[in-house]
Amino acid sequence: MKLSDVAGLLPASPIRKLVPYAHAAKKNGIHIYHLNIGDPDIETPEVMLDVILHWKKKTISYADSHGQHELLKSLVGYYQRLGHEHLTIHNLQVTAGGSEGLLWTMLTVANSGDEILVFEPYYANYNSFSVLARVNLVPVLTHIENGFHLPKPEDIEKKITKKTKGILICNPGNPTGTVYTKKELDLLVRLAKKHHLYLLSDEVYREFTYDGTKAISMLEYTHQYPEGIIMIDSLSKRYSICGARLGVLVSYNKEFMDAVLKFAQSRLSAGFIDQLMAAKLSDVPRDYFRNVNNEYRERRDVLYEHLHKIPGVYCRKPEGAFYLIVKLPVKNAENFAKWLLTDFHDRKETVMIAPAQGFYKSQGLGVDEVRIAYVINKKSLIRSAELLKKALKAYKD
Amino acid sequence: MKLSDVAGLLPASPIRKLVPYAHAAKKNGIHIYHLNIGDPDIETPEVMLDVILHWKKKTISYADSHGQHELLKSLVGYYQRLGHEHLTIHNLQVTAGGSEGLLWTMLTVANSGDEILVFEPYYANYNSFSVLARVNLVPVLTHIENGFHLPKPEDIEKKITKKTKGILICNPGNPTGTVYTKKELDLLVRLAKKHHLYLLSDEVYREFTYDGTKAISMLEYTHQYPEGIIMIDSLSKRYSICGARLGVLVSYNKEFMDAVLKFAQSRLSAGFIDQLMAAKLSDVPRDYFRNVNNEYRERRDVLYEHLHKIPGVYCRKPEGAFYLIVKLPVKNAENFAKWLLTDFHDRKETVMIAPAQGFYKSQGLGVDEVRIAYVINKKSLIRSAELLKKALKAYKD
Repeated sequence: MKLSDVAGLLPASPIRKLVPYAHAAKKNGIHIYHLNIGDPDIETPEVMLDVILHWKKKTISYADSHGQHELLKSLVGYYQRLGHEHLTIHNLQVTAGGSEGLLWTMLTVANSGDEILVFEPYYANYNSFSVLARVNLVPVLTHIENGFHLPKPEDIEKKITKKTKGILICNPGNPTGTVYTKKELDLLVRLAKKHHLYLLSDEVYREFTYDGTKAISMLEYTHQYPEGIIMIDSLSKRYSICGARLGVLVSYNKEFMDAVLKFAQSRLSAGFIDQLMAAKLSDVPRDYFRNVNNEYRERRDVLYEHLHKIPGVYCRKPEGAFYLIVKLPVKNAENFAKWLLTDFHDRKETVMIAPAQGFYKSQGLGVDEVRIAYVINKKSLIRSAELLKKALKAYKD
Repeated sequence: MKLSDVAGLLPASPIRKLVPYAHAAKKNGIHIYHLNIGDPDIETPEVMLDVILHWKKKTISYADSHGQHELLKSLVGYYQRLGHEHLTIHNLQVTAGGSEGLLWTMLTVANSGDEILVFEPYYANYNSFSVLARVNLVPVLTHIENGFHLPKPEDIEKKITKKTKGILICNPGNPTGTVYTKKELDLLVRLAKKHHLYLLSDEVYREFTYDGTKAISMLEYTHQYPEGIIMIDSLSKRYSICGARLGVLVSYNKEFMDAVLKFAQSRLSAGFIDQLMAAKLSDVPRDYFRNVNNEYRERRDVLYEHLHKIPGVYCRKPEGAFYLIVKLPVKNAENFAKWLLTDFHDRKETVMIAPAQGFYKSQGLGVDEVRIAYVINKKSLIRSAELLKKALKAYKD
C-alpha cells in the first residue's frame, strides 16, 4: 500500500524541518534566538484583543463561507482607503491565511502540468502549493548583487511557454526584502497582457517598507487588466495575528471570484473568533503601523550593521518585509544551521536560521545562503549576530 | 483566459447555494427556521469560552504545525479514555476542521484518477474534496428503506477495481443518521484487508447516538490493520465549536502521519486561539455530553413524530448524528426548497432545507429527498414541521 505521488513530492518545510533539533537543544537548556521564522513578537492591536476579552456569544458557530460580514466590511474600508475606491465585498474572499489563498489561486488559474513563472529565490511554501495543485513553478533567477530586482524582460519572456498560465510575485519580497519599482510592475503587466497570463501578486508585507520606499499594489493596475490580476493578501503580519489564520483574495475577475467561493464553501468557513477579532482592523490606530514600521526599520538597521561586520558575510539592505538573504562563508548552510542547534552554543545560547536552498528551485543555488527574519527585538538581534560571528569562527565544513 | 478544470468541476455547496434566496427572504422580513445546516445552537462548554475571556497573551502567533502541544495532550487523553490506550501524539495531526483532514487524506492515499468507494448518499463536500484531489468517488448505493445500512458484501466488492485505493465511510452518518453495527465494520475491515485498501472513517458525530446505540470507532480495528486505518475526526459538533475550525487525523500508519505533517507545514498552522480554547476539552464535565445527547434525542423524537404526520412524507428514525433524509411528495425537492424561500411564508415564517440530490453522485437519485438537520430547539422544530406541512399542501410542481 503506497501513498500518493503528491504525498511523496510534497517538500518538508525548509523553515520548519530543523524544529526537532531545536526541541532537543531546548531540552538541553540551550536558549535559541529564532531568526528562522517570520512570527513577529509585535503586540496584536489592543482593539483586536478586546474582542475576545469581551466575548459575548455562547456558541462558536460557523462563519459565512465568503467571509464574516463584519470582516468583509472592514476590509472594503481598508482597501478603499488605500485608493481602491471601486472595490466592494464582491472583489474579496476571506481565506484561512495567505496560504489557503495561494493554493486556491494556483488551483483556479492552472491545470495539472501548467506552468507559473516565479522569481527565484521565493517563499518556499510556494513549492508545496504547486505540488498540491500539480502545477509546475518555473523559476526566473534574480541575484543578490542587485537586491533581487527583476532581470531583463527578455530573460523573463524566454521562460514563457504555451503552458504558462501566470506570473507569481511576492512584493515586498519574502525571503528577499525586495520592493519592486513602478517600472518593474509596468513591465510585468505589459508581459502578462501580451501573453494572456494571470498576475498573482502576494502582498502580505505591504505595510513593511523603509527609507521612503512605498510598495505599489498590483491592484493599481486593475483598470488596465481587470481580468488578469489576482492579489493575495494576509492579515497575519500586518496586525501580528499570524495565529489567526486570515487572508484575503482580491480580484476584479468575477469568474475567478465565483470559483474561489466554491473552494471556500468546500471547507465551510474560516475561523469565527479570528474573523470577529480581525474585523476591528478599521479601529486600529494609525500610529500602530508607524510604531511597528519604525521598530522594524531599526531592527533591520541594527542587524545589517552587525552582520556586515562578520568576515565573509554578504548581504544587501532590504527595502521591505522583515527578511534578508545572507551569503555565509560556509560550503553548505543547511549543515551549518543544523550544527548551530546540535553542536554549538555560547553561554548556553545559539541561533536558528533558515537555509536558503529551500527558497530556490534550481539545483545547487542558495547552498551557502540563509534567510534571516528580523522579528525579534534589537538586543536579541545584536546578540544573534554576535553568536553567528562566533559560530562561523568555530565552524569547520 | 480560461480558469482551470478543477475550478469548473468544483460543485457549489448544495447546502449553501440557497443562501442568496435566504438573504433576500430575510430582507423582506421573513423569519427562517434553518434545517439546512448542521450548525448547532448548543452552547460551547464554559471551560472553553473561559479561555478567551481570560486571554493573557499579547501576540496571536503561529501555532505548531503538528498541533499546539496543549491540544495534542488533551486529545491523547480523550482517545485513551475511549479505550485507545496505546495512542500518542504521534498518531495525531490537528487539522483546520474535518474538511482539511478529509482533503489531505484523499490527496495522501490516492493518485489523480484513482478511486475511493463511498456509500451513497454521503456528505456532499466529499465531492469537492475529491475534485480538488482529482480522485474519483465511486458510489455504492444504500437505501432509505433499511435505514441506509450497508448493502451485501458482493455489491460492495463488485465496485472494487485496480484503481480503488480506499473505502470512505461516515459513522454515525451525515446525511443519513445511520450508525454501523459491529458486523458491518467487521465486513468493511475484511474487504479492505483482502483488497489492500485504506479505510477512511469520518467519525465527527461519534458522541451523537441514541436509544443505547453506540458508535464503534474504526480505531478499534487498528490492531488488526494498523497501516490501513485512517480516522477523520472533528471537534466542531462535539463541543459546539464549528467556527473554531479544528479537526484531527488519527492513524497508526507512520508513513501516512509523516506525509500529513508536510501538508500541515505547508499551511503553517491551525488557529492559535481556537486550539488553546479546544485544549480545555479534557475539563469538559461529563454531564455536558449527557445533556447534549438528551437534547438531540428529544429533538429527533419530536421532529420524527411531526414529520411522520405529514401526508406523503417518508423517513426513518435516525440512530445517530443529527440529520435525517426525508422523502417528500414533490417531483423536485430543490425547486421546492427554493420555493420555500422565494414564494412561501406562513405568518412571515418559512423553513430552509437542504436538497438531498447533492448527497448522491448517481444521476437522478435523491431528487425527491431533502436532508434535515435537527440542530434547533424543539419548539422551532415543531413549528418547522408545521410550516413544511402547510407548504407541501400549497406547493404545486
